[in-house]
Parts: sequence; structure tokens; C-alpha cells
Amino acid sequence: MNARRVWVTLLEKEIPFEPILVKLDGDQFEADFMAINPFQRVPVIIDEGFRVLESLAILDYLEAQYPSPALMPRDSQAIALVRMVAMLAVNEFQPATLPLTGSLVGLEVATPKLEQAHQRITMVLQFYEDLLTEHHPYLVGPSFTLADIVAGTLVTALPMLGWALDAYPRLQAWSDHLSQRKSWQVTTPQPQVIAAAIPNMTKILAQRLV
Amino acid sequence: MNARRVWVTLLEKEIPFEPILVKLDGDQFEADFMAINPFQRVPVIIDEGFRVLESLAILDYLEAQYPSPALMPRDSQAIALVRMVAMLAVNEFQPATLPLTGSLVGLEVATPKLEQAHQRITMVLQFYEDLLTEHHPYLVGPSFTLADIVAGTLVTALPMLGWALDAYPRLQAWSDHLSQRKSWQVTTPQPQVIAAAIPNMTKILAQRLV
Repeated sequence: MNARRVWVTLLEKEIPFEPILVKLDGDQFEADFMAINPFQRVPVIIDEGFRVLESLAILDYLEAQYPSPALMPRDSQAIALVRMVAMLAVNEFQPATLPLTGSLVGLEVATPKLEQAHQRITMVLQFYEDLLTEHHPYLVGPSFTLADIVAGTLVTALPMLGWALDAYPRLQAWSDHLSQRKSWQVTTPQPQVIAAAIPNMTKILAQRLV
Repeated sequence: MNARRVWVTLLEKEIPFEPILVKLDGDQFEADFMAINPFQRVPVIIDEGFRVLESLAILDYLEAQYPSPALMPRDSQAIALVRMVAMLAVNEFQPATLPLTGSLVGLEVATPKLEQAHQRITMVLQFYEDLLTEHHPYLVGPSFTLADIVAGTLVTALPMLGWALDAYPRLQAWSDHLSQRKSWQVTTPQPQVIAAAIPNMTKILAQRLV
């Protein structure tokens, strides 16, 4: 998910790039990768020798360095909303997907943990749904922004966790709308790729959830 | 720590504000607070009726709405560095302080967890130390930025966790330099406030660390 938000941004801005696949079952501990990112995480970019870590930092770098098309609004309140959407995505939504994914791949996850995760995701979805109130096709203001990318790559993947958006009609419409973008279609994970990743994902989740 | 970075920013920008103390042993679950922040977290600000959640979103809002003195650089690479510093602070440094604080307040924390936390903090400190290489008094470029606020409020508090900065001479000098700012001195937690918070902190950490 963290790499996909960068990938979508590169496509939206039509920035040429060479993707390098890092398999998280060991590639991240190789010396050549750790020389680029000692924190052993993806994504990381190198742009003409300049290395940027941390997906949200990469998005801000790309926006500053390749400003067109603009993916950030100019107004203070709109900026605040984009940042809130993104921070809630990474601080509330993403951690809550871990127990749900764990349960999905067959790990024993304690019921209170699952309930809490469910409640957190519900709260974030409601926050996003409320932003769409004023007949905006996008989360913040009249245009597609980084908010749509960061939240959208998570929300449009919820059906993979068995989560329907029926209770959130505006989010459902927004999600359908995003899924029609070329940047979305190109970066949608293929079922066979997900299937192949499950053993390693299970291993990582088992460590995280105990 | 999350509230302090906002507090320091308000002082640095000389924005008038009325602080409201939220005691995290229950105030955050009160209906009047949850109406402001359903996610039950601090800090949150309300500026002429506009509510902003999530400390990093608040910093960006304050920078956009009250641009002087500027706490963000203009150059793309400098922007990327400020963002990397902040995201490493919240994604790597802060989670690693939990086991260390837990151990300090007397919780039984497994040795591998403590070692991993120690290693993570060491990596972030080295990343910050390396940014100070070129005889900058600040982390990014010639001026004080949000990077100094987000990383500095964490690093200058490390001695409270029994962590000396001896191995990082430039960080030590930077930390001493920051501690002389009025915004730092006003917001330094008093020992009696920390002591009074320990029982509740222990309770929260016990939940998080199991």
C-alpha cells in the first residue's frame, strides 16, 4: 500500500521512472538495499542521485519537484484536510487493517483486537464519507489530490478484506470513480500476486500481532 | 510529545492561543472531547471554528495559515528532508520509545523487544546526526524548521529515558542549542508533572506492549 501511493503519484504526474521490485521476504535486508534504506522498508525513490525515504515524504517531494499537475491545494484549510486524511490513513486505518488481514490469512487474532480494528476503520470511513458531503467527486475541494491517493488506495482495497462499502454511499461512488483512473487500473494488485504473497505476509503479521 | 510539537510551533510563530489540558486518564473519552476528536487523541486545535486533528497536519495548517516566521523551506530536496525527519520521528523513533518507557516504569518488556527498540532509535539518531554534517546549526538548511521541532522535541527528551547523546556530538550540540530557545524552555515537562503521569502512562503502556 505504501509503495502503491507513490506509484499512482508517479503515473498521475507522468514522471518517467524505473520500478525495482523489492521482495519483502528478504530483499530488504540485503546490503545493497540497506545502503539505500537502512530502515529496510519500501518504498524508497532515487531521483538523480537524491534518495527519499518514507512514502508521505516521497509524495511531498514529488509534488514540490514536479508541480504539474498539482496534487495539493493552496488554501490553508484544504491543506489541513489533505494532511488529516493522509495521517488518519497511516495512523488509524492502516494499523487497524493488520488484525483484519491476520484473521483473513488464518492467524488467531483475539476478538477484542478485531473489534477494535473494526471500530477504528469504521471511524475513519465515516470521517472520509463526511468530507464527500458537498457533492465533491474528490475528498478535498474540486480536484483530485494526494488525499484521494493516500486514502483511496486503502479504501478501494477494502473489498479484498471482505469489507463492503454499502453503508457509505458517497465513499462507494468515490471509490468506483477512482477505480476508473488509469493510474488505479495499472497499479491494482493482481490476484495471483496477492496469493503468492500470502505466506510471507502471514509470517510478518504473526510477528506483528503477538 | 505530539502536543508539545504543536505548542512549540504556536510559540515560535507567536500565535495567540488558549491551551486546554486534556488528561489522558479519561478526558479523551468524554462526549465533549469526542465531539471534537472522535479518535480520542491529543493534540487537536480549533482555529476560528476550524478543527484540525493529527499533530503533523496541525503543523502544516499553522505553516500555511500563519506563514511568518517560515518553518518550511522552499527547495524540493529540503522539503523532502524535513518530511523524512518528521516521518522517521513518528514511524520509527516514537514507536521504539514505548518499550523503553515501559521498561523504565517497571513493566516487564521482553529483551528482544528492548534490543530492537534500541537499534531503531540508534538508526534514527544516526540519520539525524548525518544531516548535521555540514556545520548546520539546524537539521535542514540554514534555518530552524519543523524538522527541528518534530525531531528535537523527541531527541531533547531522551535523557529522561536514560539515554545520553555522547556518541552523537553534533546531535548533542544541536540539542543543547534547541534547549536554549524560549519555546523549548516554556514547554519542557516539569519533573513533578511527569511523576504524576506515571501511573496512567504505565497503564496505557501495559496495554500497548502486550
